[in-house]
Amino acid sequence: MSHLTRRQLSALPLFLMSAANATSQQNSDPLPSWREGPSKRAILDFVRDTTTTGTASYVDPADRLAVFDNDGTLWPEQPIYAEVAFAMERLRSLAHDRPEWGNHESFHAAFAGDFSAVAHSGLRGMGAIVMAAEGNTTPEILHQSVAEWLKTARHPRFGRHYTECVYQPMEEVLALFRTAGFATCIVSGGTQEFLRSWAKAAYGMMANQVIGSTFKLHYQENNGRSELIQLAQFDRLNEGAAKPAAVLERLGRRPVAAFGNSDGDYELLQYTTTGPGRRLGVLIHHDDGNREYSYDRQSELGRLDRALTDAQANGWVIASMKNDWSQIFPQA
Amino acid sequence: MSHLTRRQLSALPLFLMSAANATSQQNSDPLPSWREGPSKRAILDFVRDTTTTGTASYVDPADRLAVFDNDGTLWPEQPIYAEVAFAMERLRSLAHDRPEWGNHESFHAAFAGDFSAVAHSGLRGMGAIVMAAEGNTTPEILHQSVAEWLKTARHPRFGRHYTECVYQPMEEVLALFRTAGFATCIVSGGTQEFLRSWAKAAYGMMANQVIGSTFKLHYQENNGRSELIQLAQFDRLNEGAAKPAAVLERLGRRPVAAFGNSDGDYELLQYTTTGPGRRLGVLIHHDDGNREYSYDRQSELGRLDRALTDAQANGWVIASMKNDWSQIFPQA
Repeated sequence: MSHLTRRQLSALPLFLMSAANATSQQNSDPLPSWREGPSKRAILDFVRDTTTTGTASYVDPADRLAVFDNDGTLWPEQPIYAEVAFAMERLRSLAHDRPEWGNHESFHAAFAGDFSAVAHSGLRGMGAIVMAAEGNTTPEILHQSVAEWLKTARHPRFGRHYTECVYQPMEEVLALFRTAGFATCIVSGGTQEFLRSWAKAAYGMMANQVIGSTFKLHYQENNGRSELIQLAQFDRLNEGAAKPAAVLERLGRRPVAAFGNSDGDYELLQYTTTGPGRRLGVLIHHDDGNREYSYDRQSELGRLDRALTDAQANGWVIASMKNDWSQIFPQA
Repeated sequence: MSHLTRRQLSALPLFLMSAANATSQQNSDPLPSWREGPSKRAILDFVRDTTTTGTASYVDPADRLAVFDNDGTLWPEQPIYAEVAFAMERLRSLAHDRPEWGNHESFHAAFAGDFSAVAHSGLRGMGAIVMAAEGNTTPEILHQSVAEWLKTARHPRFGRHYTECVYQPMEEVLALFRTAGFATCIVSGGTQEFLRSWAKAAYGMMANQVIGSTFKLHYQENNGRSELIQLAQFDRLNEGAAKPAAVLERLGRRPVAAFGNSDGDYELLQYTTTGPGRRLGVLIHHDDGNREYSYDRQSELGRLDRALTDAQANGWVIASMKNDWSQIFPQA
């Protein structure tokens, strides 16, 4: 670095200055859980290119927006979405007061705690469970219910609390982008209020950085206080083309980087990476059956088929959990 | 102030420290365009109470959210909404390529530039003009079109550019709340992308601080670039109970202060002021026909009837433009 002037040095992004010191400081790697290779290189190069002033790839800080799918991208989605596991338990706890639910065939698997059967019922079956469990309540009550559940619930395979299953390499990516001045945002098919109840503690995502599926809201007065009630009816299902539309509606701009893992993220990555200037699209590929799960084209949950086929032509990075990640979860 | 300890002083909000110096410094009044009186006092007291630590009325900085209607609250809405004036002109400029519009009866007044007839056509007639003028385009194209229009268009009565008609007292309120650590947000019946195109320059509101009516968005690929097109169809009409619902959906929290001027803001103020703890609801009353306009219960635009009747019972402040504002517009 000795040949750089003081002025040149001050123009360098913070993390690059850290990278420059990597030989002397082992912990200066912003992505320590990513193994050296093309995926890690692509992410680091993107952040360097978009934050180095005076280059064609420089992105104004006001335009630095990176968006992240949640299930399968920031934490596991197998053997079932965490939200569906929560909804199944809440459905059971509420069932006593709702005898009519016993006649609802698709709820039987939920009452039995049968993850496999519920996953097999597809988005329609899982959606019905989430609607019934999370509908007809206020966001405040729901948040409390989720918080209680998270305290005791554990992932059936890893035995950890769900929030301890957040992918360590992705926490590092979030930190890297934030340090480089990017606004970060979750764009998930999960429902917004479920996500909001824990996304701040797990990811540092405030409520306005969480874009998810939404329920229709009903305005009502109750004992002199007005409330907004989530009806048992979806308003927006935040999958596919609805994802970029929600980002534009909420934030008023096109992201410059997007991370996803399934065909439901195709349009989000496409909208992101076909904008002008330097762009980044990354697909997390679940190819590590030993440490996590191995699935793509045939999976009922988080199917990755069309996006996997088109990834190379679209210039998207395929990050292999098996090869690119030295560690999946944080140290216990 | 000499009897306050250094520690007590440091706990005081910034603007109060300024107020304490008011006798020596004329310009330390954060609301110089507001005349002394109950309305000004209520606003200043609210900000003091919610930012003074150790009191029951203190509001955590993370919860400090103040929301503002736009038309009639931050700038004039007579003789017609500025957006409708824009849409009328855009409609005329596009009409050559859309001969079928000539058969649309409600567009005749628009082509003739007849504000009075268009206003008389109500939300349905004005909505049809806005839909036709702003539909089937991208937000980027629309922003450019609005920017061009704002450069030359002038308010028919005041002769000023529209953005020079922003109410000076409300600019001071925005600054007061921001200085006190409040997030501020526009919650308007106007369309979101129209507002976004100028709200940053006029109010310092970034895109994610603008909540307005929205169009359905259509995702399409065009020459290898994907785009979101605003269809000529409203998705959400941001009036009445839709306003608080949009705030909760976007920001995930209930505002603690709300400013509006019409019955379309009733639920926004009600949702705000019936929450727990210290709250503020303010209605701007257009009672100054000499300097601006005088209208309320009978007006076709910005009708203020039910909210005016219930204001006292609801504890809302009625700010009189005539009596409370020493100045309406910024110095030319």
